[in-house]
Amino acid sequence: MQASSPRMQLGQLPTGLLDALASRSLPSRPIASRLSRGIPSQRRDITVNQLDTSSDQRERVVILGSGWAGYTVARQLNPKKYQAVVVSPRSYFAFTPLLASTSVGTLEFRTALEPVRSRRSNVNYFQGWADVVDFKNKKVTVEESADNSTQGFALSGSRAETQPEVRKAEQAKKGKTFDLAWDKLIITVGCYSQTFGTPGVKEHALFLKDVGDARKIRNRILLCFETAALSTTTDAMRKNLLNFAIVGGGPTGIEFSAELHDIIKEDLARIYPELMEFYKITVYDVAEKVLPMFDEDLGKYAMKVFAREGIAIKTSHHVESLRKGPPGDSNTAKDVQDEYPCWTLRVREEGDIGVGMVVWSTGLMINPFAKKALGKIPSIPESGVKYLTPGSELSRGSLQWAVSKEPKTGAVITDDRLRVLLGPDGDHESKQRAIMEDVFALGDCAKIENTTYPATAQVASQKAEWLAKRLNKGDFDKGGFTWKNMGVMAYIGNWNAIMQGGGGGSVSGRAAWVLWRGAYLTKSVSWRNKVLIPIYWFLNWAFGRDISRF
Amino acid sequence: MQASSPRMQLGQLPTGLLDALASRSLPSRPIASRLSRGIPSQRRDITVNQLDTSSDQRERVVILGSGWAGYTVARQLNPKKYQAVVVSPRSYFAFTPLLASTSVGTLEFRTALEPVRSRRSNVNYFQGWADVVDFKNKKVTVEESADNSTQGFALSGSRAETQPEVRKAEQAKKGKTFDLAWDKLIITVGCYSQTFGTPGVKEHALFLKDVGDARKIRNRILLCFETAALSTTTDAMRKNLLNFAIVGGGPTGIEFSAELHDIIKEDLARIYPELMEFYKITVYDVAEKVLPMFDEDLGKYAMKVFAREGIAIKTSHHVESLRKGPPGDSNTAKDVQDEYPCWTLRVREEGDIGVGMVVWSTGLMINPFAKKALGKIPSIPESGVKYLTPGSELSRGSLQWAVSKEPKTGAVITDDRLRVLLGPDGDHESKQRAIMEDVFALGDCAKIENTTYPATAQVASQKAEWLAKRLNKGDFDKGGFTWKNMGVMAYIGNWNAIMQGGGGGSVSGRAAWVLWRGAYLTKSVSWRNKVLIPIYWFLNWAFGRDISRF
Repeated sequence: MQASSPRMQLGQLPTGLLDALASRSLPSRPIASRLSRGIPSQRRDITVNQLDTSSDQRERVVILGSGWAGYTVARQLNPKKYQAVVVSPRSYFAFTPLLASTSVGTLEFRTALEPVRSRRSNVNYFQGWADVVDFKNKKVTVEESADNSTQGFALSGSRAETQPEVRKAEQAKKGKTFDLAWDKLIITVGCYSQTFGTPGVKEHALFLKDVGDARKIRNRILLCFETAALSTTTDAMRKNLLNFAIVGGGPTGIEFSAELHDIIKEDLARIYPELMEFYKITVYDVAEKVLPMFDEDLGKYAMKVFAREGIAIKTSHHVESLRKGPPGDSNTAKDVQDEYPCWTLRVREEGDIGVGMVVWSTGLMINPFAKKALGKIPSIPESGVKYLTPGSELSRGSLQWAVSKEPKTGAVITDDRLRVLLGPDGDHESKQRAIMEDVFALGDCAKIENTTYPATAQVASQKAEWLAKRLNKGDFDKGGFTWKNMGVMAYIGNWNAIMQGGGGGSVSGRAAWVLWRGAYLTKSVSWRNKVLIPIYWFLNWAFGRDISRF
Repeated sequence: MQASSPRMQLGQLPTGLLDALASRSLPSRPIASRLSRGIPSQRRDITVNQLDTSSDQRERVVILGSGWAGYTVARQLNPKKYQAVVVSPRSYFAFTPLLASTSVGTLEFRTALEPVRSRRSNVNYFQGWADVVDFKNKKVTVEESADNSTQGFALSGSRAETQPEVRKAEQAKKGKTFDLAWDKLIITVGCYSQTFGTPGVKEHALFLKDVGDARKIRNRILLCFETAALSTTTDAMRKNLLNFAIVGGGPTGIEFSAELHDIIKEDLARIYPELMEFYKITVYDVAEKVLPMFDEDLGKYAMKVFAREGIAIKTSHHVESLRKGPPGDSNTAKDVQDEYPCWTLRVREEGDIGVGMVVWSTGLMINPFAKKALGKIPSIPESGVKYLTPGSELSRGSLQWAVSKEPKTGAVITDDRLRVLLGPDGDHESKQRAIMEDVFALGDCAKIENTTYPATAQVASQKAEWLAKRLNKGDFDKGGFTWKNMGVMAYIGNWNAIMQGGGGGSVSGRAAWVLWRGAYLTKSVSWRNKVLIPIYWFLNWAFGRDISRF
């Protein structure tokens, strides 16, 4: 949730802006003259052959993924030294800390997005899913997916079993595949949303991991109010529709409930005054407290603010299922249930509760790609592998090697240089270990051996910056990565935030809110968004959030 | 396409802005204090009973539709005199002249939208489709449709036969209905897109009538380029994918092709330089010339600009069909064709052409509601009908009356006070005529008897302003509506426009472009959009249009 700037240094800003503006030609100058500048490093390539031709002896770095880790490392690699090629099913980077704001319209969706392809970057890009990794021949098989109906949405299982509308589209097609050779491979495939197998959650809950999720949530909130405002809707159904449940009390769930509170109190209360008696916001968590990463004082402060705002926090509560239709109707035929505009959440401690929307943010599961493609190594590469244990090299051919994983989560284990570790498959008794020197893993899908760094954007982008620097300088021998804890922040509604420094200091209330906004404004990537974000903050304060649904 | 301001008078602006800002409380003041101001006219109601209670002896004006005519008249009715109730399947007003700009990202989608419900309007709203009109008892039956999957999209036939994804969703549900009584009824249901029954167009073409259409187009353009940039795509398929066909050479088709040219030349050329050899833009029209509403000189100027920009204009061309899959493949099984990312357009003069996108803007057909609900009058009302022909009153009971329609188009005929005309059903020999004094029709679905005003936003909003003024003042006897031709404008790409005044004067080129932008900025409705539109114009000039797809 919290992350340091992926690339910005303040000293560069004015120049960057001037460059950007200077790069605009006057309209009367035809595009041809701009193109004829022909800066070769800005040339991108569309076939693997063209990539090969234009590599100019540079090493090719293939980056799987376009999240905090992948996007950051791709942009920071020195294009004179490396040919960066991103492969990702998602053609943009999502600035995740702002998604909650976009999901209620405090910010417009695009302010949280940066396309991977850009006029000012040197990154090559193929839209697709990495499929098979061949470590011996150093190539990855990519399934193209430009027309990717899962783009924009959190994934909560394999692509085939994710949300219904996606599922149907995906069954219909399987993309063509092609092979892409690498000199170095950087794995940043991230995580899916964890539903713990709770029945109905994959089908009916909304997530908040990507911009399509945010868009769905924004439309759903407004739809709930519009449906409740219909003359044909009963008061009982109004109560169901305007009962909003958030499952998971981490920063995402808490910030979303705060933003939801804000749009209702600041905007919807004026537009639907007659509906205010019906609405309710509840955060459920199985744990004993929410926001566990914050100090007790900050947590208590947050609880006080939430109580004042009327947001219910229900800890030690267990969500058991989610289904279509209102409560007390479980015997009705499924197609009749489907006609109701609400859902029923079953909570062990409370029974069946009618809800208009469930936002699910309980945690992460490792991308299934790690299990599928990063398992046994059929044939160990002849070079680029460093054996760490005596005798390993001798058993090179006879031993079945596999990518080391954290047993509980399945995260890929790396050394402190972010290089992927190998060990004997299955046989955890054997102590043989090796490192793939040209294969790196970082972001939420990876873990440095013997560390407990959290799976956050902050860790991901620090690792990415560190790795890009090492690759650019070629100084891996200088030491390993260590995380610098920059602290955590959370927006808690009504212009309040809580903030805890990496050193232990803390700020809360309005001052923390100012810091919260300042931090994300500073960290946002492009000039476009640095300009747009404060404008939207101002406009939505002055005129209210836009409530058009489309 | 061209329209005068629906409400703005320059003198009011600064006050309006100050009011808007002053209405923001400081964040520390809870919403309760804002609500407690309790301006009664800002109260909106959610049930018909509540509407009845709060009407305070005011006449209820029910407005069917939220387009140029309906939105304008609803906002301009005096809330002290009338209780305005809008019924529309679309919960916002779309500022149609800016849709072409939003479809390529020159502007963000929401800059072309104004929600019907607003903190500063007194308009009541129900999201639904008007279904049956009972003129005798002065009530309309409304089918609620808050969860309306057609919202945002052009309709090209009855709801059930419109675009595939919509069709499926609609089959699944039929909304509840309720009755709404009126004192005055204003019919502004507008038009659907006309496809002339051309096979495949409803299913595969894109339209440009609403913001959902614009969003689809934006995603499709970017998808075509991204797919063409895949390593697995052949050069032949690249040519298909980047062949963009626009059918219809009216202002919408022409402005869209100009905007498409701009995004390609100004942005995509830098992001996909290697694809520039493949792209092509063609405008097809059956007529002998495009932009028929402009003088010959302006038309020639536009053709010259288009030729220079490389946009092909093919007049006297007949589009015969559109199907999935590439050309020369018509015998392939349908499901195999579906796998191809392109379509085939059949043109009588050219044969089969592979295309990546077809934007269809050939014209309008009257909303089927006019045929379904505005036909025979089962029982003529006892009051509120003025008989125009001698003897009509006598045959009141015996004659089968019907709403008068233009035989060719089916448009509702009104007198010059915009009141709906009645005549004998079917029997066009009979000269009997009557007027419903409390039922008005305007916008694209209506026509004043013996006039040839075009079906444009300009005419619709002038009629709406005129009608609101008459209703507010109660001075229908002062004279009928006459259209004041304010001229026509069209953007033709590369910072050029053409503009023809109502009096006959004309401007072209850069100066017309400045006027074009100035006019639409002035005419945009809300302060939010007046601020955002120039900001997006600047940002997209400075940093390029955003190419994120979601």
